[in-house]
Amino acid sequence: MTQLACRGFLAASVAAGIKKIDRLDMGLIYAESPASVAGVFTRNRVRAAPVLLCQERVAAGRCQAVVANSGNANCCTGDRGMEDARTTAREVARSLGIDESLVCVCSTGVIGQFMPMDRISAGVPPLAKALRPDGFEDFAKAILTTDLVSKTSVASGEAGGRPYTILGVAKGSGMIRPDMATMLCFVVTDAAVEPGPLQSLLSSVTERTFNRISVDGDTSTNDTILVMASGASGAVVKTEAELARFGEALNRVLGDLARQVVRDGEGATKVVEIRVTGAASEADALRVADTVAHSNLVKTALFGQDANWGRIIAAAGRSGVAIDPDRVAIDFGGCRICVDGRYAGPEAEAAVAAVLKEKEYVITIDLGMGGHEASMLTCDFSYDYVRINADYRS
Amino acid sequence: MTQLACRGFLAASVAAGIKKIDRLDMGLIYAESPASVAGVFTRNRVRAAPVLLCQERVAAGRCQAVVANSGNANCCTGDRGMEDARTTAREVARSLGIDESLVCVCSTGVIGQFMPMDRISAGVPPLAKALRPDGFEDFAKAILTTDLVSKTSVASGEAGGRPYTILGVAKGSGMIRPDMATMLCFVVTDAAVEPGPLQSLLSSVTERTFNRISVDGDTSTNDTILVMASGASGAVVKTEAELARFGEALNRVLGDLARQVVRDGEGATKVVEIRVTGAASEADALRVADTVAHSNLVKTALFGQDANWGRIIAAAGRSGVAIDPDRVAIDFGGCRICVDGRYAGPEAEAAVAAVLKEKEYVITIDLGMGGHEASMLTCDFSYDYVRINADYRS
Repeated sequence: MTQLACRGFLAASVAAGIKKIDRLDMGLIYAESPASVAGVFTRNRVRAAPVLLCQERVAAGRCQAVVANSGNANCCTGDRGMEDARTTAREVARSLGIDESLVCVCSTGVIGQFMPMDRISAGVPPLAKALRPDGFEDFAKAILTTDLVSKTSVASGEAGGRPYTILGVAKGSGMIRPDMATMLCFVVTDAAVEPGPLQSLLSSVTERTFNRISVDGDTSTNDTILVMASGASGAVVKTEAELARFGEALNRVLGDLARQVVRDGEGATKVVEIRVTGAASEADALRVADTVAHSNLVKTALFGQDANWGRIIAAAGRSGVAIDPDRVAIDFGGCRICVDGRYAGPEAEAAVAAVLKEKEYVITIDLGMGGHEASMLTCDFSYDYVRINADYRS
Repeated sequence: MTQLACRGFLAASVAAGIKKIDRLDMGLIYAESPASVAGVFTRNRVRAAPVLLCQERVAAGRCQAVVANSGNANCCTGDRGMEDARTTAREVARSLGIDESLVCVCSTGVIGQFMPMDRISAGVPPLAKALRPDGFEDFAKAILTTDLVSKTSVASGEAGGRPYTILGVAKGSGMIRPDMATMLCFVVTDAAVEPGPLQSLLSSVTERTFNRISVDGDTSTNDTILVMASGASGAVVKTEAELARFGEALNRVLGDLARQVVRDGEGATKVVEIRVTGAASEADALRVADTVAHSNLVKTALFGQDANWGRIIAAAGRSGVAIDPDRVAIDFGGCRICVDGRYAGPEAEAAVAAVLKEKEYVITIDLGMGGHEASMLTCDFSYDYVRINADYRS
């Protein structure tokens, strides 16, 4: 595996005691000099205090440190929550000897509880002291909540003959609905990219990656993706071609992390791409894919390994898109189970049964209405989703 | 309990062998003379053959018999499915000695399989022979699929000094999303009501009852409500006041049946009314109620008896309505857990914990934005929902 490091950046984590059990729950990313920053944030009307603070700071285009915690979302905590987020940033800035306006704060965990500021404050100095170039692996662990595995991804590129690295870290497995970014994701690169183009690239790549995944259709109050570009590699990404290539590399990192989030979806046993083709427009394709990807009846059938194409076509039919059922074809992993809106027969069913046993596969829904397409990545819906979410918080 | 009968109507059911196991799966309602009829149907673009046939026949305003089956939805079955529905109607008409255009057909069950027409045809003559005034109880059983209990409701009224009865029968426990009627519901009355006003009343009452419930957010391809008015009581419902009173009685019957559907929701252990108050408009109130009522994270928390108001406010925040989190208050059964968008504290939590143990309760979300309100009825999300839907069809 590629080494999890990126020139110009250090990372660290500590167990600050925010979570009930003794686990890494506070992490820090530090850029050796102020980096360009871009961010995308939740579109939920209910936004956590750290999201509001990040939005303010990202607007200025420069950032040198990001402090993140799991175990408490600092959401629905009013003025006190906002003050807590500012205090956290201030204490991190003091420990690092930088300006507090260069510190972003991200939180994830339970909604509606005040931050344990004594523990946060006590955690900051050891966190700053623990910073090291290979600290990203532990940082990735410190931001997990119901996630079972940590999620990292690395891509490389080159600009003006100079190689650069893009390193991404994400968390998320529940409250995942692509109305935005999803939960927390941090990307660092040693390429030099100005904040303006960095923000444009991040927004468009997010649209194609994190905004195309679903676990349960709920939208977090804390979703944040931050990208920091240090320029420490000497690679300057500036021309249209360089920006395009950088965007592709960023797309690989975010696409990979988004798939890892779905794979680690709460209770998930399957990762399924819902690919809608033959749509009259891309918006139509996406709307059908979105409705199918969020159908609980479809998702429980995927868990049950049942070739229940009837539920898929029924979900497509309620999507609001003017589909013609008689033109619809549905394939599981390339095996056609539904032709012209009708059952393809028992032989097709046997082939599909084999596909359904796989851990990852594609369901293609061809609408037969035009030449546009779109995809969503979803997971199945198992007993464990219910168990995790009935027990969580208590 | 009130007797399940209504002057001028007979009902019957048989085990025709459409379901794998030997259970009642075919039912018939017969009016001694042609009755006024009104209907509301699924808004899904994928509509079963019998829905298309019913829509055609209800448009004519008169109906004398309804044949219904469970075990097969006759959906996604193309021209052959349509022919099968017509054949069924024709055979029922022949057995009853009435015109086939006066017969409606309703089906519920698996999508994408052809009807076992040999069994349907064999079932019709014994079904016609079994008709009797008190046959509605068995009819209610014959239309069940994953339902655990049959659902019936009776109300009475009076017009011009003559008493009348409204008797309703429904089935439904999954694929329940209020974009329309829900699954199958049959209502008969011995009042005389012209098709035009009957249709208006049915549409507006459906909006307030079946269109305000949710089990899993999926929309059936077969949803149908039919109301037949025989006039056999001699009560003529005609004036504005009589129609209003009839509408109220119809509202009691459909409201009662809708609640029974939620109570029997697949895997449901709780029935919860999501009441949104203080909204800037009724549409806003309904949109917030709808989003909360469909949130899987909220529904699993209800199952876990967890006072997770954070998930409720997060769902409200993603509803698309411009809420101000700082004005939101949330009560469980009258106990306030969230004030001004913040946690009300551990004492409130203890009171709410007692409410959460109840089987049926109300969650009130006050938005603090205006004077409008709306309610949705939902259920919790349990292991059994997953079990039922992972296993069904196989």
